[in-house]
Amino acid sequence: MSILLISKTRDMKPFRDALLDLDNNLDVDIWPGIKSNERVNFAVAWNHPKNQFSNFPNLRVISSLGAGVDHLLDDESIGKHVVLTRVVAPKLTEQMCDYATMTILNMIRHTQKYTYQQEKAEWNPINHFSKENLNIGIMGLGQLGKRVAMRLINNGFKVSGWSKSEKSIPEVRTFKDKELDSFLATTNVLVCLLPLTSDTEGILDLNIFKNLAKPSFLLNVARGEHLVEEDLIYALDMNLLNHATLDVFQKEPLPDSHPFWGRDRITITPHIASLTDPAESAELILDNYKRMLSGQKLLNTVDLDKEY
Amino acid sequence: MSILLISKTRDMKPFRDALLDLDNNLDVDIWPGIKSNERVNFAVAWNHPKNQFSNFPNLRVISSLGAGVDHLLDDESIGKHVVLTRVVAPKLTEQMCDYATMTILNMIRHTQKYTYQQEKAEWNPINHFSKENLNIGIMGLGQLGKRVAMRLINNGFKVSGWSKSEKSIPEVRTFKDKELDSFLATTNVLVCLLPLTSDTEGILDLNIFKNLAKPSFLLNVARGEHLVEEDLIYALDMNLLNHATLDVFQKEPLPDSHPFWGRDRITITPHIASLTDPAESAELILDNYKRMLSGQKLLNTVDLDKEY
Repeated sequence: MSILLISKTRDMKPFRDALLDLDNNLDVDIWPGIKSNERVNFAVAWNHPKNQFSNFPNLRVISSLGAGVDHLLDDESIGKHVVLTRVVAPKLTEQMCDYATMTILNMIRHTQKYTYQQEKAEWNPINHFSKENLNIGIMGLGQLGKRVAMRLINNGFKVSGWSKSEKSIPEVRTFKDKELDSFLATTNVLVCLLPLTSDTEGILDLNIFKNLAKPSFLLNVARGEHLVEEDLIYALDMNLLNHATLDVFQKEPLPDSHPFWGRDRITITPHIASLTDPAESAELILDNYKRMLSGQKLLNTVDLDKEY
Repeated sequence: MSILLISKTRDMKPFRDALLDLDNNLDVDIWPGIKSNERVNFAVAWNHPKNQFSNFPNLRVISSLGAGVDHLLDDESIGKHVVLTRVVAPKLTEQMCDYATMTILNMIRHTQKYTYQQEKAEWNPINHFSKENLNIGIMGLGQLGKRVAMRLINNGFKVSGWSKSEKSIPEVRTFKDKELDSFLATTNVLVCLLPLTSDTEGILDLNIFKNLAKPSFLLNVARGEHLVEEDLIYALDMNLLNHATLDVFQKEPLPDSHPFWGRDRITITPHIASLTDPAESAELILDNYKRMLSGQKLLNTVDLDKEY
């Protein structure tokens, strides 16, 4: 029996080392260096090469290395009997809370403008937006969305949330499904923390931006495919949005020639809102691996109908 | 009887308008346009022209427009019988909490580097510092220091504090006076929120930077005079400090030719951590004015021996 670590873009060695630190008897392969296809019964995947999984006849579980599983949903080589799980690590959630708090404050307090001014040795105080007059609206109230909402409340923000099914979070005004327009009408700072599904792809479009309360800000920390990129450019040019902060993009790394780079009202970070800690992820993965071996219920399994 | 608003640098009209909004019968002068020196019995000062106060024989109270009173302490024209007060506004404190949270996260998560990278269309994720491995140390545990400590705790940081007299704040490890070295040895992110007094002027010097735990960061949101500027440059050059964020400077506006501007490991903001809201300040000032008229105890008076 062996664990396969498979990714096209990510260096999986730190994760192998972290697994072996926990249990030196584990058999861990890193794609493409696989000793025996038959021995692989558990795979850990991140941005993996498509349509490889039918090569592993004894594969029983595939774990995403992060909270997102969209990269697994369109792979037809995954047999129906294979269980999908994901890593929901407290440190990942904590980092996301930090990132959201920091970038929202940066947008309403003009941090990026002050960096530009510093480069020109320019001293120019700018009135910032008052928290009292702004409403944060979080799209997606799963584990991440809920924790981010609570953190923002702890930082004195007023917070609403929208999700497909009804949710209840203390001090958060929640909206569901068909109430999207009412949610947007009271939202100044829109935070996207939705899972990427066929329903949510392209959801951040001109129609959404038009319906936000003024002033309007966007923070996308979910997936690049949630955003209609040309609609964001248009909304900024039309002053429907004051500023956008983006950590995720349809194509990563964001190509050199992409129009987002040169915009002073877009803040770009290179997919760093939450960085997986190998030691923490290894513990969670090993836990599920042992559960699989002993026939126990796996943790953080994915609901294929909901697509998350 | 009249209220005098006096400042060399600040436009006092919004404060006069806010006072008159509250009570249209008030008599409010803005320096230097004073109708009658004899009528002035209450002054509101911010960066005021020195040695003017002996011109007002009936002056009984001077209120600083902010939390700092250092600009009043060295003015010899203030009679011994004049009571000094300051404005301690909840919104000012809230803004300071936001600013500290935001700038500390920006330092440990490389926000400024990402802005520079964006200008070059460069996609380069950088591992950030983990909160778990960092200790925040706050110098000064007055109203502001205490609230900032509590906010940082709410954001999952470990926080210590140092102050002249012994203080107790839930979840904050506190040090006093002679325990400065022990405080510094466990501090990675040093936050200066001290009042400016003869004891604290120049306190942020090379000796302090050398004694911090590594990695080391500095946030000065108190007064420019707390910092020995050449020591900061030296400490950055010697890699005793990773990064410094400064909102206050010995000379403001910071002169064009100042070496701080060009440093990529210094973040400069133009004294905007906390911006006084005229309406909120006017309420607090008017309250003290009425207390003076009716002989009640004034709020937020300044202890001249402690110098704050």
